[in-house]
Amino acid sequence: MKKILVINGPNINMLGKREPGIYGTESLEQVNENLGRKAGALGLEVDFYQSNHEGDLVDRIQGLDGKYQGAILNAGAYTHTSLAIRDAVLSVRTPVVEVHLSNPHAREPYRWRSYLAGAAVGCVAGFGPRSYELALCWFANG
Amino acid sequence: MKKILVINGPNINMLGKREPGIYGTESLEQVNENLGRKAGALGLEVDFYQSNHEGDLVDRIQGLDGKYQGAILNAGAYTHTSLAIRDAVLSVRTPVVEVHLSNPHAREPYRWRSYLAGAAVGCVAGFGPRSYELALCWFANG
Amino acid sequence: MKKILVINGPNINMLGKREPGIYGTESLEQVNENLGRKAGALGLEVDFYQSNHEGDLVDRIQGLDGKYQGAILNAGAYTHTSLAIRDAVLSVRTPVVEVHLSNPHAREPYRWRSYLAGAAVGCVAGFGPRSYELALCWFANG
Amino acid sequence: MKKILVINGPNINMLGKREPGIYGTESLEQVNENLGRKAGALGLEVDFYQSNHEGDLVDRIQGLDGKYQGAILNAGAYTHTSLAIRDAVLSVRTPVVEVHLSNPHAREPYRWRSYLAGAAVGCVAGFGPRSYELALCWFANG
Amino acid sequence: MKKILVINGPNINMLGKREPGIYGTESLEQVNENLGRKAGALGLEVDFYQSNHEGDLVDRIQGLDGKYQGAILNAGAYTHTSLAIRDAVLSVRTPVVEVHLSNPHAREPYRWRSYLAGAAVGCVAGFGPRSYELALCWFANG
Amino acid sequence: MKKILVINGPNINMLGKREPGIYGTESLEQVNENLGRKAGALGLEVDFYQSNHEGDLVDRIQGLDGKYQGAILNAGAYTHTSLAIRDAVLSVRTPVVEVHLSNPHAREPYRWRSYLAGAAVGCVAGFGPRSYELALCWFANG
Amino acid sequence: MKKILVINGPNINMLGKREPGIYGTESLEQVNENLGRKAGALGLEVDFYQSNHEGDLVDRIQGLDGKYQGAILNAGAYTHTSLAIRDAVLSVRTPVVEVHLSNPHAREPYRWRSYLAGAAVGCVAGFGPRSYELALCWFANG
Amino acid sequence: MKKILVINGPNINMLGKREPGIYGTESLEQVNENLGRKAGALGLEVDFYQSNHEGDLVDRIQGLDGKYQGAILNAGAYTHTSLAIRDAVLSVRTPVVEVHLSNPHAREPYRWRSYLAGAAVGCVAGFGPRSYELALCWFANG
Amino acid sequence: MKKILVINGPNINMLGKREPGIYGTESLEQVNENLGRKAGALGLEVDFYQSNHEGDLVDRIQGLDGKYQGAILNAGAYTHTSLAIRDAVLSVRTPVVEVHLSNPHAREPYRWRSYLAGAAVGCVAGFGPRSYELALCWFANG
Amino acid sequence: MKKILVINGPNINMLGKREPGIYGTESLEQVNENLGRKAGALGLEVDFYQSNHEGDLVDRIQGLDGKYQGAILNAGAYTHTSLAIRDAVLSVRTPVVEVHLSNPHAREPYRWRSYLAGAAVGCVAGFGPRSYELALCWFANG
Amino acid sequence: MKKILVINGPNINMLGKREPGIYGTESLEQVNENLGRKAGALGLEVDFYQSNHEGDLVDRIQGLDGKYQGAILNAGAYTHTSLAIRDAVLSVRTPVVEVHLSNPHAREPYRWRSYLAGAAVGCVAGFGPRSYELALCWFANG
Amino acid sequence: MKKILVINGPNINMLGKREPGIYGTESLEQVNENLGRKAGALGLEVDFYQSNHEGDLVDRIQGLDGKYQGAILNAGAYTHTSLAIRDAVLSVRTPVVEVHLSNPHAREPYRWRSYLAGAAVGCVAGFGPRSYELALCWFANG
Repeated sequence: MKKILVINGPNINMLGKREPGIYGTESLEQVNENLGRKAGALGLEVDFYQSNHEGDLVDRIQGLDGKYQGAILNAGAYTHTSLAIRDAVLSVRTPVVEVHLSNPHAREPYRWRSYLAGAAVGCVAGFGPRSYELALCWFANG
Repeated sequence: MKKILVINGPNINMLGKREPGIYGTESLEQVNENLGRKAGALGLEVDFYQSNHEGDLVDRIQGLDGKYQGAILNAGAYTHTSLAIRDAVLSVRTPVVEVHLSNPHAREPYRWRSYLAGAAVGCVAGFGPRSYELALCWFANG
Repeated sequence: MKKILVINGPNINMLGKREPGIYGTESLEQVNENLGRKAGALGLEVDFYQSNHEGDLVDRIQGLDGKYQGAILNAGAYTHTSLAIRDAVLSVRTPVVEVHLSNPHAREPYRWRSYLAGAAVGCVAGFGPRSYELALCWFANG
Repeated sequence: MKKILVINGPNINMLGKREPGIYGTESLEQVNENLGRKAGALGLEVDFYQSNHEGDLVDRIQGLDGKYQGAILNAGAYTHTSLAIRDAVLSVRTPVVEVHLSNPHAREPYRWRSYLAGAAVGCVAGFGPRSYELALCWFANG
Repeated sequence: MKKILVINGPNINMLGKREPGIYGTESLEQVNENLGRKAGALGLEVDFYQSNHEGDLVDRIQGLDGKYQGAILNAGAYTHTSLAIRDAVLSVRTPVVEVHLSNPHAREPYRWRSYLAGAAVGCVAGFGPRSYELALCWFANG
Repeated sequence: MKKILVINGPNINMLGKREPGIYGTESLEQVNENLGRKAGALGLEVDFYQSNHEGDLVDRIQGLDGKYQGAILNAGAYTHTSLAIRDAVLSVRTPVVEVHLSNPHAREPYRWRSYLAGAAVGCVAGFGPRSYELALCWFANG
Repeated sequence: MKKILVINGPNINMLGKREPGIYGTESLEQVNENLGRKAGALGLEVDFYQSNHEGDLVDRIQGLDGKYQGAILNAGAYTHTSLAIRDAVLSVRTPVVEVHLSNPHAREPYRWRSYLAGAAVGCVAGFGPRSYELALCWFANG
Repeated sequence: MKKILVINGPNINMLGKREPGIYGTESLEQVNENLGRKAGALGLEVDFYQSNHEGDLVDRIQGLDGKYQGAILNAGAYTHTSLAIRDAVLSVRTPVVEVHLSNPHAREPYRWRSYLAGAAVGCVAGFGPRSYELALCWFANG
Repeated sequence: MKKILVINGPNINMLGKREPGIYGTESLEQVNENLGRKAGALGLEVDFYQSNHEGDLVDRIQGLDGKYQGAILNAGAYTHTSLAIRDAVLSVRTPVVEVHLSNPHAREPYRWRSYLAGAAVGCVAGFGPRSYELALCWFANG
Repeated sequence: MKKILVINGPNINMLGKREPGIYGTESLEQVNENLGRKAGALGLEVDFYQSNHEGDLVDRIQGLDGKYQGAILNAGAYTHTSLAIRDAVLSVRTPVVEVHLSNPHAREPYRWRSYLAGAAVGCVAGFGPRSYELALCWFANG
Repeated sequence: MKKILVINGPNINMLGKREPGIYGTESLEQVNENLGRKAGALGLEVDFYQSNHEGDLVDRIQGLDGKYQGAILNAGAYTHTSLAIRDAVLSVRTPVVEVHLSNPHAREPYRWRSYLAGAAVGCVAGFGPRSYELALCWFANG
Repeated sequence: MKKILVINGPNINMLGKREPGIYGTESLEQVNENLGRKAGALGLEVDFYQSNHEGDLVDRIQGLDGKYQGAILNAGAYTHTSLAIRDAVLSVRTPVVEVHLSNPHAREPYRWRSYLAGAAVGCVAGFGPRSYELALCWFANG
């Protein structure tokens, strides 16, 4: 059974509280719970990790190989500022899918540049919490 | 039963022949056939349209309302150069999902800017022909 | 009697349906009908042409000389992306007036650059459907 | 009866003397006299004001409300350098139409950026002294 | 009684030791002690927090609601590089005032861009340790 | 007793009338009256000056030395376009504090660049009319 | 016997009429007739195609393989705006030579960027109608 | 006898007081007195004018023709921000020489762009008060 | 005996595993062991520290004074994104040498900008693990 | 009989040794010998000159008039950095054709800008050593 | 008696032949002869040097100290591309005046940047051959 | 015994005389003598070459193969402007180490771009004359 780590970056833990006009009112716990159910239905096992610390995310990504068959990464604001996370993704063999709740390219210009693109397998953006599900689908049928 | 139009832009008809290192060896016909099967399994009906003409794509998008419940749009090179297609997507109520075979942000800088972002519901990029399937999933469960 | 061709580019045919907050609720047919009446009152004859195809617009502009004494051109999104239309305007002797419903310089930065400026006689922008009428006035009294 | 103020900015008082290849040989007095006649025919009353001083133009625009039903503003070189005039236009309710003799977008790049766009109702550019007349037409039929 | 958290970012703990030509010779402890006295006089209670870790600052800002009525944030170098801290400020309802010892706009160009502006209530910069006091004044009289 | 000149630039005299969503509904007279009261309480004497003319502001700043112990300068739109005001501030020994009602860095990009930064002692921005008060506090306790 | 397709893009059909100061007074028919003669002398067979439509040019380039041993492409204004034509050239094995009548790098900056370079075999520019002949020479001796 | 107007822009009246490290300790009066003497020796008559107002400088330049055979213009900070002064110089036939005390190209980047260059006959920069003398020499021997 | 701290930033702990085409196959442990031997031969004592956390690196650099006579810093991806590390280096008196395995200027443009340059004593880049040795040599003979 | 000078700039003498993946394995001597033969067949006389010195190339170009009826110039890396060579080409009446082995526009961005374009008659690029031959053809039939 | 070296850079030896519309019809020999006469009248001795080689100009500038009391340098096109000449001027104590025949800031943008500014004492530009004379005047009266 | 050529570019011969604040007071002869001694101790033979001529440096680099086992290149100002030297380094097999006395990235922005990076093996910068020694160490132990 494939094991997938869902990694959420800075401020994703504020989901439901933070700018609901952009991110919706569902909390991260609800999103994860729902995702866990969907994963089970798809025959996947999921673990969840969230941190506001760039270094923690780098540490966690470095530890993927051998423990997980894939990762779903919503690096939040670090998507646009962190070369270290990009380099971490490049340093492991586990495929990582880049995910965003909103579509960064439809927002402020400083959210247009993704350092993850080119390191990640692919990207799903703009579908709210369902972006994670579409990434799960890919792992399920891959 | 939801009806979805899959719209492919310039040079996607060369799939399998064009730069196979980037786009793979499957032809557009094979991709579409496979997609039709997946759609059926998801309880969706799909039509397919391809054109190398920017104006044709604009015409076709303008005609979505009332005929389709959704569209999957791989605008190819026009993604990065066509404001007219962006304006067409904004002129209809039918939700349109932006799709790319490769991840444009991992390629040449002139492919980083998407005029569709902000007009489309969301974006799936980088999973090869499976990008279309993930978009279908979204319509199936939406 | 002076004969003027009113040329509308991509998505102008969606007038009334497309982003009414920006473009108003009047359809292109209503705008044209109204314009025809105004033209008659000014002693001008008008023909109308609309296309979503860059090449069609180029073809039509190339055919102006000998058939029309002037053209009013709302090139829509192509204003900002088409060098070919600019070159077409430069290739004929018929004077062409650039017209916009909204003022592109008051919108997104990618609508600030007009390739038509410098090729067209002048520009009227931001007055909604009345922008066309002001251009007609110029031809009537020129 | 609608009262309109025609405001001319720096160096427009040199009309006829200044770079006649670009601006023609008619003087500002002749342009204004002619404009007065046209206004009368359209059932409008016009006042004229010219200053080379950015602050004077700001003062005058701030005083529009209650005295005029509209203003026609050729801010000359200040169009491209003055945020203060833009802010002044935004501080009043009187509609202001931006006017240019030549089309700034067909000239040097430092004349491409208009700070007035977005604050003014609309823009008429490139028709020489007749640009003012077209703006008058708009007020007459508005 | 209003409770305010004073949050200092990277290298502010080196105050007095670090580039005294720019930042003065007073230590952070002295600055805080002095600030505590001023706060008391203004009828405010203050807590102090300093960290060199972007993630710690994000964590702490996320925890403001319900515990503090306001925060004073000198994000140091992270002001110019951290979208995550900006998003954290946007995710809480507690008002945050941006503070700088020196005026970043009078220094190197890479210190001109503040990601906090637009998320913070306001900004006080360039008055050395007294910048914090002015921010306190605002909370005292707000 | 310290004497401070409060200098307001273009369009600040429209306060209350101009874009109230951004600047509030209080008039400049009310702001000044209130500020006079606060100054008295802080043991400071204040004079007020407003002009829409860049040259007037330069003249007035040049005359500070010997008459005032400090100045509070809200240069409005000239903050972003006037090198002459910057040079005037540099030509006197009287300390000048830069003040803004809104935070320019949270608005349009052409309001991000301040020519005053580097010439002024410090900057207070974004607190509405209370920005002036915070600047007064600095002079009172300086 | 090698068969070469000469493809001309937008407004090249206006040759002789369009900006003769830049492009000369010879018509496209005369240029082609002359080119046909030269081709015969070099032992090559040439076909001619012209279209103002980006999509037509893409279609035609996609159809090169198996019918032609080479193509000479003057994409006119599309050289600088069309990624779709670039991608079409990359999707076929037939060698394509980029040709320009004038040297785009000696004209307006927006004509400096060629999307064809890198996809085409080589480029001949600036020799007027003789640019086509030099490209023919290359095919003749290749 | 040739009559020359020496026009000084904003803050030049602060000479001797303003940033003496850059501009020296001589006052404008002393510079002018000295210049008057030099002019006499060269057989020239000189008048002096200084203003901090952009509009005043424009007015004065517009009045040159018929009264003066030449002008020496140190537009100070307006050199880099005023298109209106540039247009004024272009609107008269009297030759104008651009003069700077320091060399703007050796200072901050926002002083590198001169709007006067191209409108003025020539430029003398960097020789302190002697820059004016060299300009006088040119008029004397012209 | 001089004591030197070798500080490695994010992903350097993946050496040998990460992109071996760029970084080689030797692990960080092997590099350090080898470096320890070289240091001994040069009469230096070395300690090693690695962290993926920007804040940890800042903390550690702040603690250099009094414990070490020098530091060798390979800040990895943080070299290009961290102003905080730059400020930390500037806040201590211990000399810090910037080191890179590959030459960042020969890689992607976003690796060209080093925030450390100007804060560090000097830089050694591009010699693989031997870059550290050359930095050690400098401390040995300094 | 027309006499043509073939001028090669820096590092072209390393042909065959230098980056053979880009420039091929033929030496400059072989290229020249072959070119001499082709020239003879075309009824042209050719001389050859190569230098790595920008000044030598300028000297040589300045000496063209009266000695040669044309020049073929491969300025190598100087194409992109030398204004002096551009000015030299502009200072003579002898027509100069710009030639490149590879197409600079398909390489690194710092090779996209040609200072020669606009000074040279035309340009042939990307055909390897055959680029020179095509230039010869132009002189032969001109 | 002061001795001045007049140094002319690339293509200045083509004076009279090169683009007479910009540079006039007088040859460098005539300019120098005339300059020699003027120098004598001013009590100065002048030597002349011209080279098209950047390195020669660097060599010559390095040799100024001890032999000349000043230099007049028209570095031609190297003004805009040569950091080496800038560094050479900075390496000697002899004052160097930058001179240009035309005003580079009134020409193509790539001639706007002078690397000499900041290294040279001052600059005289735009007066044709008389620019040299004005520089001589400065040395005569210095 | 390995033979290394130390190549110094423009103005390095002025060492000790030129801007001693940046480059120190030691002359190039002293630096070289000292370097010769160090080389001997490391078992290396060194030759020295200096030129102010870009072309001479290109010539010399082209001649490295077969005569030297390595080169140390301080290209001075040409580092930032010479593509020709970059191409020369790429045209030989002898490894070249880029060396700088100061760290260009800590100086003016126009010294941040190194054309040598990517062609050279590695880079040592900022250690003054000891930068050469560190490069020698690399050759000694390589």
